[in-house]
Amino acid sequence: MSKIKIGLFGFGVVGEGLHEVLKKAYTADAEIVKICVKHHNKKRTLPDSYFTYNPDDILNDPQINLIVELIDDAEESYHIVKRALEKRIPVVTGNKKMLAYHLEELIELQKKNNVALLYDASACGSIPVIRNLEEYYDNDLLLSVKGILNGSSNFILSKIFNEHMDYAKALKMAQDLGFAESNPTFDVDGYDSLFKLVIITVHAFGTYIHPDKALTYGISKLEQWDINYALEKGTRIKLLADVSKLNDDEITMFVLPCFVPPDKYIYSVEDEFNGVVIKGEYYDKQFMFGRGAGGHPTGSSVLSDITARQHDYKYEYKKRNNYKKMSYTTDCDIKLYVRYHNEKDLELFKFHDITEKYWSEEYCFIVGTVKLADLIAVQNEIKARDLFIAKLY
Amino acid sequence: MSKIKIGLFGFGVVGEGLHEVLKKAYTADAEIVKICVKHHNKKRTLPDSYFTYNPDDILNDPQINLIVELIDDAEESYHIVKRALEKRIPVVTGNKKMLAYHLEELIELQKKNNVALLYDASACGSIPVIRNLEEYYDNDLLLSVKGILNGSSNFILSKIFNEHMDYAKALKMAQDLGFAESNPTFDVDGYDSLFKLVIITVHAFGTYIHPDKALTYGISKLEQWDINYALEKGTRIKLLADVSKLNDDEITMFVLPCFVPPDKYIYSVEDEFNGVVIKGEYYDKQFMFGRGAGGHPTGSSVLSDITARQHDYKYEYKKRNNYKKMSYTTDCDIKLYVRYHNEKDLELFKFHDITEKYWSEEYCFIVGTVKLADLIAVQNEIKARDLFIAKLY
Repeated sequence: MSKIKIGLFGFGVVGEGLHEVLKKAYTADAEIVKICVKHHNKKRTLPDSYFTYNPDDILNDPQINLIVELIDDAEESYHIVKRALEKRIPVVTGNKKMLAYHLEELIELQKKNNVALLYDASACGSIPVIRNLEEYYDNDLLLSVKGILNGSSNFILSKIFNEHMDYAKALKMAQDLGFAESNPTFDVDGYDSLFKLVIITVHAFGTYIHPDKALTYGISKLEQWDINYALEKGTRIKLLADVSKLNDDEITMFVLPCFVPPDKYIYSVEDEFNGVVIKGEYYDKQFMFGRGAGGHPTGSSVLSDITARQHDYKYEYKKRNNYKKMSYTTDCDIKLYVRYHNEKDLELFKFHDITEKYWSEEYCFIVGTVKLADLIAVQNEIKARDLFIAKLY
Repeated sequence: MSKIKIGLFGFGVVGEGLHEVLKKAYTADAEIVKICVKHHNKKRTLPDSYFTYNPDDILNDPQINLIVELIDDAEESYHIVKRALEKRIPVVTGNKKMLAYHLEELIELQKKNNVALLYDASACGSIPVIRNLEEYYDNDLLLSVKGILNGSSNFILSKIFNEHMDYAKALKMAQDLGFAESNPTFDVDGYDSLFKLVIITVHAFGTYIHPDKALTYGISKLEQWDINYALEKGTRIKLLADVSKLNDDEITMFVLPCFVPPDKYIYSVEDEFNGVVIKGEYYDKQFMFGRGAGGHPTGSSVLSDITARQHDYKYEYKKRNNYKKMSYTTDCDIKLYVRYHNEKDLELFKFHDITEKYWSEEYCFIVGTVKLADLIAVQNEIKARDLFIAKLY
C-alpha cells in the first residue's frame, strides 16, 4: 500500500469535514497535499500554502495519486473529473448532479483508461448504499430500493410535522446547520434525491436513466391542508425516492412526496437522517439508516472511498456488465393525491380511477390513479401551478 | 469468471434455502453439484443422486471449486473447513460456533494456503455486517458495534413483551417457524449472539476474543417481575451484544439482556429481526436492520458470499493486519439489575454503587454498579442460581 497523496478540489463544508476526519484516521496513510479553490481572499482554516486557484497545479502534480473532488458546480466538476480520468488519475467525487448527468460517459472513460472513479459519498452521506448494491446485492434477487435520500428536505418535513414550524423557518434552520445544498431548490424540489436515485439505479439494476426523463416533484408547495390530510390518515409526508422492478424486464423510478404509514421503516426516519430500504426476494427487506448530510458524515464517507483506493478498489458495475439489462418504463400506475384551488388545474391530470374528492371554498383535493408517463408529460406544468401532489404509499 | 461448482455440506433449513435461492439467481452461474449429509433414509426434496454420506466425495472431487458448509455440528464443521482450506479449496460457511472457537487458526490457514474463507452468513443472516466492517468501516473512526444478533431470542422477547405469551410457548413457536437453532440454549442463553460478536469483533477491531473469556448471559431465567420492571421504566428487554472501544488501546465486549429505552434504534427491532448499530466518530450512528434468521434470508446471504467468490473476493482482515491492535479488557463498570429470591445469592455480586433496592416476599431486586471482570469470574455460578440479571442501558 502506497501513501495516498490527495489533490483536493473544493474546501466547503464537506472538504473541511474531510480534512478533520483525516486527522483522526491516522492509520489511513492519506494526506491532503494541495487544495484548489475558487474564491480568493476567503478566510480559511488552513495556511495559504495549501491552496491554489489553478486546477493544473493539481492535475499536473506528479506526486498526487488521488483527486478528491468536492466542489459545488456540476459543470466544473465534470471537466475536472474527466481531465483527471483521461490522465489516469483515480478520482473520488461527491458531486451527484455531475454524476447523474454524466455517469454513462464516465463509466466508459474509467474502462478505457483503466482508472477508478469512486463516489459512495455522493448518495446518502454516511450510508454505504452504492458499495452494498455493488458488492452485496450483486444478484438477481433485488426487487426495489426505496428511501429518503435528502437530509435537508427531510429535516424540513420533520420540523413541520413534529414541531409545527413553518416552511421558511425550517428551511433557514436546515441551511444554518449546513444540511442544505447551496441551491435549496435542489433539496426541496427533489432534484438532489433524483440525482442520487439515478446513481443508485445504475448500481442496483444496471440501467442509466437520464434525470430529465424521470418524474421529480418536491415539497416546496406543501401547505397545512396537505399536512392535515396526512395526519387524518395516520401518515407522515416523506420525500420518497423509489426504483422498483416491475417484472423480469422492466423497472420504474420517481421522486415524489408520499404519505407514509407508520408500519413502514422510513416513517421513523426523521430530521436530517437518510434511510434506505432494500427489498429482495428471499431476504425480504433490509433497512439502512444514518446521517445523510453534513460535513463530517459525508467526510467520513469520502474517507471510506479513499481507504478503498488503498486496496485498489473500483466499482465493477456488475449489474450493468454481467446481468440482464432492465428497461426503464413509465407505463405504470401511481395512486396520486392532488390538492388544488383552481378546477382548471385538474385538467392536467388524467385520472382513471378516482377514490376520493373534497371541495371547499379554501381548497380541494382529489385522490385517484394516474399513469406515470402522463405525469411526466406535464410535470413542468404541474410545478408551475398552485397545487401539491403526493403519492399514496 | 468461471462457473462456480459447489460441494455443499448439510441440507437443513439453510441448505435447502440456498438451493431455492440459487434457482432464482440465474445470472450467478453457480450450481450445487454434490451434497454431503449425515442421516441416511431421510426424506429430501432433491433426487438421491445429489447426495453422498462421505465428505471425501466432495473434498476429492476436482470439478468442485467452492465448498459451502452449512452443517450444525461445530466440530465436524471445523474438520471439513480445515481440510478444505489445506487442499486450497475456498469455503463459504455459516457456522458461527466453529468460527468463534477457531477463527485465529483459520485466518492463519487462509494466509498460509492463499485461499479464501467467507462467512458473512454466519453473523446476522441477511444483514451484511462483516462485509461492511471489513470494507467500509476500515478506518480508525469506529467506536462500537451494538445489536440484536439473535433472531430467535428476539422473537421470544417480542412475543412475551407484546403478546404476553409465556416463555415456553414463544420458544416452541420460534422453533416451529425455523428461527431457532437445533439446540435452543444457543439462542436463549446468548451463545449464538456471543459467537457472532466474536466474529464481528475480529472485523471491527482486529481483536480475537475467545468465547470462554467473555460474559454471556441470556433470557431463559426471565420472569414476569423483570418484564414489569422493564415496563415501569418505559423500556423493553433486548438481548444485547456489545463491543465498544473504551479508549485508544482497549475494547470490551459482552452479551447481556438490557433494558432498552425507546429512543434507541434497537428498541424497535422486533420478532425475528436483527438490528446492528455501528457508531463512529464523525458519522455518528448507522443502523442496519433485516432478517437475521431463517433458511431463505440466510441462504441469500450465502449467495452473496458465493457471488463474491466469482470476483475472487477474500477478507483482508484489515483491522487485524494494518491497524493498531486493541486489547480486550474486563476492567470496566456495568450498571446491573439483579432480580433474586435468596439473599445469599447476592453475595455473588460485588456492587460498588447501589441505586435501587426492592424487597417483597415474592421477589427482590437490586440495581447497582459492578465490574465486568467480577461478573465473568462468577458467571457459571450466576447461571446456576434462581435469579436474572440485565444491564441498564
